[in-house]
Amino acid sequence: MKKRVEIVKRIMDSNEQLAEQNRQKLDDHQVFGINVMASPGAGKTSFILQTISRLPEGLRLGVIEGDTAPVTIDADKITDAGMPAVQINTGGDCHLDANMVGLAIEQLDLNDIDLLLIENVGNLICPAGFALGNHANIVISSTPEGDDKPYKYPNIYRGVDVLIINKIDLLPYIDFRMDYFREGVEMLNPGLKTFEVSSKTGEGFDGWIEWLQEKVRTAQE
Amino acid sequence: MKKRVEIVKRIMDSNEQLAEQNRQKLDDHQVFGINVMASPGAGKTSFILQTISRLPEGLRLGVIEGDTAPVTIDADKITDAGMPAVQINTGGDCHLDANMVGLAIEQLDLNDIDLLLIENVGNLICPAGFALGNHANIVISSTPEGDDKPYKYPNIYRGVDVLIINKIDLLPYIDFRMDYFREGVEMLNPGLKTFEVSSKTGEGFDGWIEWLQEKVRTAQE
Repeated sequence: MKKRVEIVKRIMDSNEQLAEQNRQKLDDHQVFGINVMASPGAGKTSFILQTISRLPEGLRLGVIEGDTAPVTIDADKITDAGMPAVQINTGGDCHLDANMVGLAIEQLDLNDIDLLLIENVGNLICPAGFALGNHANIVISSTPEGDDKPYKYPNIYRGVDVLIINKIDLLPYIDFRMDYFREGVEMLNPGLKTFEVSSKTGEGFDGWIEWLQEKVRTAQE
Repeated sequence: MKKRVEIVKRIMDSNEQLAEQNRQKLDDHQVFGINVMASPGAGKTSFILQTISRLPEGLRLGVIEGDTAPVTIDADKITDAGMPAVQINTGGDCHLDANMVGLAIEQLDLNDIDLLLIENVGNLICPAGFALGNHANIVISSTPEGDDKPYKYPNIYRGVDVLIINKIDLLPYIDFRMDYFREGVEMLNPGLKTFEVSSKTGEGFDGWIEWLQEKVRTAQE
């Protein structure tokens, strides 16, 4: 049994080391990196597309798309919107790791990018445990998933820097107690920066874009 | 490297063996077992609650609730609805396994149950790889998750016996192409038994309840 624990430990250390290398590469090129996590269907790609459509003049974005299958549906949408995208197919794995992200970074020209969005695999559990080398972690929750998610998937909310509450355009049609949801998050991650948005209508994006601009500016100082 | 592969193989074998023991226990008691899989927030618990409210006279149900945290929100809802429920806290793991389910089965009196619903952890990736000993696997997809899910999470659709398309009451408010979704599923799992339902309004449940009754009847012959 002892032997097995040692092997697992070594794998984790290796991921940490590779994440550190990724971070160094991003820093060398003054690129601000964000790891975007969410449940399947919470709207990660739509959120990124709405962000692209509102990007301030001169802010250059690149996207790494994590998928469990070799379909390029999401990556195609990003390139259709005029931004460079690299797809990672995890081959069924439930999260990205630093090695995959490192290989994807090599496919991007970091000199042409100010902001790197890494769309993790749709999963509220696995991605929380693996450092990728990015600077900020965000989680997107969508209102139709229900207001009990912070209580049932606490780990993902504990480690993030920003929470996006997506699909607020559906609030009139569903039972979602915003107070209850946000109280749960507050217990796990007090004072967490939170934006309530609709990636469909664009509502609520101004604050998010401002936050993004500020972060990119700081990375370039 | 060879040693490590052997260890993993042995763990898998052990899960298969434990799943076989669970199956034997269910069969001995003429209990039909269903593994319910879905993304977080697809409506697994609401689906089970609507099923309970429509159970035919004399059909006795038990529920095993899989959660990644020690909250009993879902298990409480089931016992409030008058049915026996046992909660499994996976401690952060992204799926149930046969050992956990075996321990939970010991907490239920199988003589008092005709149908066992095992609500797996909310995850579209991990649960597909672990046999639990149940007779049928179902996946619940909800319309707000988007119509591209079969294309992006193919594995979960390949191995199931029934697909529930939940939250059809939200169709007027979202962009969801039912044809595109169902075509994707058809490629992965031709002829898959599918029910379009709303766990909120109860729409579409008649066919599902009929399917369930037929399965329970067969298990008791």
